[in-house]
Amino acid sequence: MEVIPQSEFARAGGNLALLADMCRVNALVAVKRAGSGHLGSSFSAMDIVVHLFYAELNTAEIGFDDPGRDVYFSSKGHDVPGLYAVLNALGVIPTERLLKLRRLGGLDGHPDVGVPGIEANSGSLGMGISKGRGIAWAKRLLGHGGRAVVMTGDGELQEGQNFEALQAAAAHAQGNLWVIVDRNELQSDKPTTEIVSLGDLEQKLRAFGWHVAACDGHDHEQLGAVFADFRAREDVPKVLVANTIKGKGVSFMEHPHALREGGGTYRWHAGAPDDESFALAHAELVERIRSQLPDLLLEPVRGTDEGSVGEPQSGIATRARVTDEYVAAAYGEAVLDLAETHPELVVLDADLASDCRIRPFELEYPKRFHESGIAEQDMVSAAAGMARQGLLPVVNSFASFLASRANEQIYNQASEGSKVIYALHYAGLIPAGPGKSHQSIRDISLLAALPNMTIVQPGNAEETKTLLRWAVEEADGNAALRLAIGPSPRRLELPAVQPGCGAVVREGTQALLFAYGPVMLHEALSAAELIGNQLQVVNMPWLNRVDPGWLHELVEPFDELFVLEDHAPVGALGDTLRRELGNRQVRVFGVEGWPACGTPTEALRFHRLDARSLAERIVSALPAKASAE
Amino acid sequence: MEVIPQSEFARAGGNLALLADMCRVNALVAVKRAGSGHLGSSFSAMDIVVHLFYAELNTAEIGFDDPGRDVYFSSKGHDVPGLYAVLNALGVIPTERLLKLRRLGGLDGHPDVGVPGIEANSGSLGMGISKGRGIAWAKRLLGHGGRAVVMTGDGELQEGQNFEALQAAAAHAQGNLWVIVDRNELQSDKPTTEIVSLGDLEQKLRAFGWHVAACDGHDHEQLGAVFADFRAREDVPKVLVANTIKGKGVSFMEHPHALREGGGTYRWHAGAPDDESFALAHAELVERIRSQLPDLLLEPVRGTDEGSVGEPQSGIATRARVTDEYVAAAYGEAVLDLAETHPELVVLDADLASDCRIRPFELEYPKRFHESGIAEQDMVSAAAGMARQGLLPVVNSFASFLASRANEQIYNQASEGSKVIYALHYAGLIPAGPGKSHQSIRDISLLAALPNMTIVQPGNAEETKTLLRWAVEEADGNAALRLAIGPSPRRLELPAVQPGCGAVVREGTQALLFAYGPVMLHEALSAAELIGNQLQVVNMPWLNRVDPGWLHELVEPFDELFVLEDHAPVGALGDTLRRELGNRQVRVFGVEGWPACGTPTEALRFHRLDARSLAERIVSALPAKASAE
Repeated sequence: MEVIPQSEFARAGGNLALLADMCRVNALVAVKRAGSGHLGSSFSAMDIVVHLFYAELNTAEIGFDDPGRDVYFSSKGHDVPGLYAVLNALGVIPTERLLKLRRLGGLDGHPDVGVPGIEANSGSLGMGISKGRGIAWAKRLLGHGGRAVVMTGDGELQEGQNFEALQAAAAHAQGNLWVIVDRNELQSDKPTTEIVSLGDLEQKLRAFGWHVAACDGHDHEQLGAVFADFRAREDVPKVLVANTIKGKGVSFMEHPHALREGGGTYRWHAGAPDDESFALAHAELVERIRSQLPDLLLEPVRGTDEGSVGEPQSGIATRARVTDEYVAAAYGEAVLDLAETHPELVVLDADLASDCRIRPFELEYPKRFHESGIAEQDMVSAAAGMARQGLLPVVNSFASFLASRANEQIYNQASEGSKVIYALHYAGLIPAGPGKSHQSIRDISLLAALPNMTIVQPGNAEETKTLLRWAVEEADGNAALRLAIGPSPRRLELPAVQPGCGAVVREGTQALLFAYGPVMLHEALSAAELIGNQLQVVNMPWLNRVDPGWLHELVEPFDELFVLEDHAPVGALGDTLRRELGNRQVRVFGVEGWPACGTPTEALRFHRLDARSLAERIVSALPAKASAE
Repeated sequence: MEVIPQSEFARAGGNLALLADMCRVNALVAVKRAGSGHLGSSFSAMDIVVHLFYAELNTAEIGFDDPGRDVYFSSKGHDVPGLYAVLNALGVIPTERLLKLRRLGGLDGHPDVGVPGIEANSGSLGMGISKGRGIAWAKRLLGHGGRAVVMTGDGELQEGQNFEALQAAAAHAQGNLWVIVDRNELQSDKPTTEIVSLGDLEQKLRAFGWHVAACDGHDHEQLGAVFADFRAREDVPKVLVANTIKGKGVSFMEHPHALREGGGTYRWHAGAPDDESFALAHAELVERIRSQLPDLLLEPVRGTDEGSVGEPQSGIATRARVTDEYVAAAYGEAVLDLAETHPELVVLDADLASDCRIRPFELEYPKRFHESGIAEQDMVSAAAGMARQGLLPVVNSFASFLASRANEQIYNQASEGSKVIYALHYAGLIPAGPGKSHQSIRDISLLAALPNMTIVQPGNAEETKTLLRWAVEEADGNAALRLAIGPSPRRLELPAVQPGCGAVVREGTQALLFAYGPVMLHEALSAAELIGNQLQVVNMPWLNRVDPGWLHELVEPFDELFVLEDHAPVGALGDTLRRELGNRQVRVFGVEGWPACGTPTEALRFHRLDARSLAERIVSALPAKASAE
């Protein structure tokens, strides 16, 4: 594995297309090394990003601390490996750090202002134009020069917040705000036209009062001409629709080709390429670069550690054990099963059908599958309407987006007394590679105060099926199903439980540890194995509902009670148990502060939620007789 | 005060303009009697609603239970007094209930499906088209006839969710979805063009792939022609931009006139008219009706009770005591004061400047005031951008909207480590007249799991100023300031406190009751006055932060600990105290279930949070020695 050293970039002599290819090589290496990352989008945006930093923005000259600097950031955020590579080429990010993509102390999987050159946190879609116009407004008020330049995806424009921002920027005549749409025509794995078409995008943007241009986003001459024109238009916000190719620069990743190969789905959106694809892509890029820079120097990547290379997207493989069980997959199967006997069951998606494992349902029951595009609020309110008509909507997205962005819509739906099932995918701390925009550590707190919402999290595949069946067939109000997205770190035998009740999964004598979900149950059991027979572990899948009789009888013999949260320490199971237990002390181990970005092992250790740290914390909290035993 | 009895409507003989005026009379009476309600918008939409129910929808014929019915609802929701009047005319809602607008057991201040003829909960803006298209989609799937017909406001279209819904409805070719925009050109109290212009609305809607028509929304012939045309277009969603006049039907409420009279602001958006204006409006309407129906029968309103008539918008006057103190007003003054010495302080609004008491700031510092329109997500992300540029944004909206709809944007801002102050107006249960879309009983839970967010609620004007100054000058992270919107029920002397500490406001011997905010502190103190010297009352304005030393010393002498929440029992101060107190039992009195709609007295009693109920609950929870004393 070889990168292009920083020193080589000066030799490109302002050849922007060449520079873009050179950055593509380093982004490719960083993603391969991380085991995850978004190459398709990094590559489609790469010419634009290179053009901006090398030919348009003033940051290369005046630096990232000058208040008069141009502020550039990407709203879609998942294209950040490309941006990191450009910042590396400019000397802002050292190569060593570039090669620590998605690692603790390295570079966050989505943009974070803690990284040099990163001007805004993003990763959840659709916030960028608003943020950019806040920056542009502040610049004017403060008398600072420079523009705000925001990159957006095209699928991302399905988020309604974009249109709030577009209308307000026009109303405020924010001429120092530029937006560039990376119009690569694909969202996660399908064409935008197949998810929710943007229609005539330029017409839409014009209707919102913006000056609109369009050009080939890989043609530096055209880009230069548009930007020159933009500079001359002072009192109107400006948007460039840059027509690009997803995966640009590597023939087999380029979307027209890759879509044909994939039978209509695009496989290079997220995830690192396998070794063979990596080698092919690397060779193709290097060959093209060497056609212009024959003596291009490549540097072998040193210190490659096994944990980080070829790691699956979830990253759980870095831990000693990992299984081939995915509760998300079990969920997908359970939805299909239940659909057969429940004709009222319909499934809603916001462009995460593959990740949420509902593609099989879509294929089997296309009429009962509803695609909202990247528009969680619309999805939830549409589900509310469906529920009022007698359907049972099962609403899918990542927990961090669904519980948060659509929170008021969920409240509104719940207030109608209808029943909707919310599938909160990618709940909790792990995988930690994508960073804090994706890690969901607040979702329980965001839903728990609703009067008719039961929140559960299954710990294995079987419990996933049981709990979904309960939600569909028995729950008399809304249910939220928290689901881990990665592989289960171990296979668990979990006794069946009644609503509000958990079950002992390991006997112990002195202290009791509640946990839920495959990730934390594994850490809890591993901690118990380290500690010995003092620690009893209880799987408690009911997160905001508890059977008082069961609980009081369960805890009675134990001196100490602990809860392991796959969540912030506030607003989750610990608080639920405290409300019921009253005068018993309940100690909570939760995700304190902002969730760390890194491998699962790194993130768990960072938060002292890995088995070893937990064992230490528990033993030190036990009265002397325990630690002495 | 006289209404038109139900029997009179049949005599209008299908004269739609006449029927609309007759309904205006009854809506006017209902609002006057309630002491609050939105006449301007009810009147602008009235011709359309009457036209729909009398000439277009099938519900008058087949009823509200038939699955093949047309489903009509208003997304803006605050125009519901007009809809209630039409439903009353049709015999769906009895007159007795119409006259219990905004009262417990009567008609909710915003639409609620518990009321006959109401098809969707609304009141928080921008969800209706999504919901309507969910209904339309379900109808197709289930093979049910009928359309979904959604009324929206025009200011409401600033919410981004509308555009999510518009694009998805077009993508799904939802021909059984109709939208009617009540284009009265005003939002709360100013023209839409002065808040955030909608630009060329028809062009926008066309750009989103809808069939668009426009007509005079008070001309029944034009309305009929448009709807006939709509019926002929099957495979495309259709929107009518109905040009209307806010306050239509009462000369001095009609917006061209009223705006001139008001020097640019419109005073008939919300709130009941005073007695003189009511009499004038009533007389004008009745006179016009009698020009066509000379023997129109009017019926005196019986059983008028004083509490409900002429009650101020907040409704607190129904309780024995009410002061002229508004913590919201103190907040407005404090913002102005701090602005002088803090040039970095800027204020953001989402079209609630009057209610949020920031109009004086807008007038004094127009360049430092930022209007986002009804677009809370955009407002928050714009504030995030401003904060990154060194400004200190103070973001304003109602708590129920801001903490919920912009929740993910707040998380994103907080994750950048910048500082923003969130002013959560209209926090808590009271006023209860507008209903559950506006009452905010989850906002603490929605923000408490953020690592760098301190949530406070002041109990009087002085504490409001102190806490805002603390937030501006001392807080090292974000602060959320919960603010009651109504008048304080009593003037309180509140000792100054340190961060994390509360203060005793009434000494007691046996039990301790924590409370916060003017509404609940009043009930707590009144309860203590009923109980006697056993109950100590502590004002605790820090809702998710507590000084352990202070707390442990404070509670040590007391047998029993109680918390009175102006919030759901989950996720608020009680949970904060339990986390700190560990093995002490903390009993919480909070807003259980959905917040009741009614006068303050009714709502507090319903939830058993009024002084008398509290006293009973506390005494019954105390050990025998207390209740015997």
